[in-house]
Amino acid sequence: MNDTLMTDESRLRREHHKGHYDRETVYRILDENPFCHLAFVQQGQPVVIPTMQWRVGDMVYWHGSSKSRIAHGSDSAKVCLTASRIDGLVLARSAFEHTVNFESVVVIGEAQRFEDTAQKTALLESFFDHLFPGRWDALRAMTASELKATAVMGLPLHSASAKIRRGPPNEPEEDRATPVWGGVLPIAMQFGKPLPDEFNQMPEPGYLARLRTKP
Amino acid sequence: MNDTLMTDESRLRREHHKGHYDRETVYRILDENPFCHLAFVQQGQPVVIPTMQWRVGDMVYWHGSSKSRIAHGSDSAKVCLTASRIDGLVLARSAFEHTVNFESVVVIGEAQRFEDTAQKTALLESFFDHLFPGRWDALRAMTASELKATAVMGLPLHSASAKIRRGPPNEPEEDRATPVWGGVLPIAMQFGKPLPDEFNQMPEPGYLARLRTKP
Repeated sequence: MNDTLMTDESRLRREHHKGHYDRETVYRILDENPFCHLAFVQQGQPVVIPTMQWRVGDMVYWHGSSKSRIAHGSDSAKVCLTASRIDGLVLARSAFEHTVNFESVVVIGEAQRFEDTAQKTALLESFFDHLFPGRWDALRAMTASELKATAVMGLPLHSASAKIRRGPPNEPEEDRATPVWGGVLPIAMQFGKPLPDEFNQMPEPGYLARLRTKP
Repeated sequence: MNDTLMTDESRLRREHHKGHYDRETVYRILDENPFCHLAFVQQGQPVVIPTMQWRVGDMVYWHGSSKSRIAHGSDSAKVCLTASRIDGLVLARSAFEHTVNFESVVVIGEAQRFEDTAQKTALLESFFDHLFPGRWDALRAMTASELKATAVMGLPLHSASAKIRRGPPNEPEEDRATPVWGGVLPIAMQFGKPLPDEFNQMPEPGYLARLRTKP
């Protein structure tokens, strides 16, 4: 296993100062940002759909319906999985220097589909454990037909890049006299108060409070 | 111009009840969710990157460095632009019925690049006006070299789909007796208090307050 995730394919073509290829940075961003976008190619047309990812060791995983296009139907196994978080809008004194504070990871490679029932179950359990520690054991077991209807896919973390932009506007000194507000409008994804459904009889689990108070 | 954005390529293959193809729904989701992901194909490999989009009439636009891969360097002009918003995690009593509340729009087609300086300037101004009404006029004008370094790209809204999932878990009645919490953990993107940079001399503009109080 290589320490670096830089490959000819994953290397940033520009803004090299924002790029990171170490496993620690890439793994942290993946672990903190479960919402992601997955791209594949279908009859020559790229398609990108929102989904969720989770990481176990040096693989990143996602799941979906066995009937869906993320499980099959692409031209090839080649996919790209991108997890990103927006941290703020950066308002400079020129249009050109406006930008966004963000963190993102782009992973490219060939998707693998897992068919073994025990392995699929263990991977789905690891997805739950990452989001809601302890919840899996309280749920009824998945049925054979539910497992069959669920595709679990994975991508080796071999070729990837992280990109990070933080802080105030970065602009030429002569622009700073322009009489317009300069700074950052912070953005964060916030969890709200859990809404039990009308059938709920159980107290609010601790993992929901934990998610809500995450930094 | 067709009223429907459904084409053979944009039609959902499954979960038809979540699909929408009318311009009103697709336009609303695009207008409310400027952060998006853009996919293209490079040497047979799909690549998806986070960016921002804005809509004018029946076109969706994005911009980036003229040197970047979103401006050129793809195998073809075929792209997919997906804007999505996560509204909540839906916790059912079985692993299988867990899902996510969200809204998304997927637009596919061939990207166009705009080269005319006046047209590029007008499109970038419309991007600013959408986010920060009135800000454009307070900035210094873009220079010729800044405009040259900025690629403005667009995609006709011809083939697209919207997908929406809202509300509590939807699960078989017999699952509801399982002793585990059931409901929704709401999620929202929140704007924080604007952070002026150390050079700022101007009062906070009204458009920042407006963004922060948006529903």
